[in-house]
Amino acid sequence: MGRGLSKDINFFMSEAIKEARKALEKNEVPVGAVIVKNGEIISRGYNLRETKKDILCHAEIVAIRKAYRKLGDWRFYGCTIYVTLEPCIMCFGAILQARFDKLIYGASNHEEGFSRFICNIENYKKWQKLEIVAGIMKEESEEIIRRFFTNLRSSP
Amino acid sequence: MGRGLSKDINFFMSEAIKEARKALEKNEVPVGAVIVKNGEIISRGYNLRETKKDILCHAEIVAIRKAYRKLGDWRFYGCTIYVTLEPCIMCFGAILQARFDKLIYGASNHEEGFSRFICNIENYKKWQKLEIVAGIMKEESEEIIRRFFTNLRSSP
Repeated sequence: MGRGLSKDINFFMSEAIKEARKALEKNEVPVGAVIVKNGEIISRGYNLRETKKDILCHAEIVAIRKAYRKLGDWRFYGCTIYVTLEPCIMCFGAILQARFDKLIYGASNHEEGFSRFICNIENYKKWQKLEIVAGIMKEESEEIIRRFFTNLRSSP
Repeated sequence: MGRGLSKDINFFMSEAIKEARKALEKNEVPVGAVIVKNGEIISRGYNLRETKKDILCHAEIVAIRKAYRKLGDWRFYGCTIYVTLEPCIMCFGAILQARFDKLIYGASNHEEGFSRFICNIENYKKWQKLEIVAGIMKEESEEIIRRFFTNLRSSP
């Protein structure tokens, strides 16, 4: 770490935003995620809930599933997940279950974001070490979501 | 409802316990789930996390995925999920996302159960109507988990 850490964070978040744009093109709520290990992106995902008719197709879980295939394990030690939007309770739970080292997200999700609903996390014994960083490239992530809702309102 | 409701609840929980036994046979943490709509079981699942090396193979999510295929929709209005053990944060989040009417569980999960970690759920606008019933056939569900950990300790 050290050198260029903030540049790295922005680089990976930009990649997550690219994923969110793919969701936007499919008229999905535009959320994107990438998973990084040892400075490399090992998987990517974007929200496909409506396309797949599957709640488990939130960006984070799509990326987690792909990463399994690469890692061959369900323990994501040493991995960071970058998400453009604050995860929901389900995705936050999946991130805890998967033993990520770090969660980095962009925009806050005032309606469904985990931070409104999760408490006592310091008692979650096995995963108390999850580091959480919020607000990275927040404006860009918010902008893409705003665009989605503007399109939605202006569609016939 | 009305007539024999408590009998129904026990019947469906017994079916969830049957699922948990299948997990026990595979040396998985024995948790089982069934999803009920209009008085009928529409899907079943048991924990397969180690077998599949996939955190998304908790009993609840296995059952939810199967139910999708039957319902062809991700909204589980009118459905109840029976789980032998209190769901973790991830599974509880999935139950909220899936818009279940009711969650019924057996044993409490003192380490990872959602009820220790979820707060302000009354503000979770879209799903504030989820009804939660705890402690149904608690002893049976606890017993099967105890058996799992006893086997684990006595294995070479």
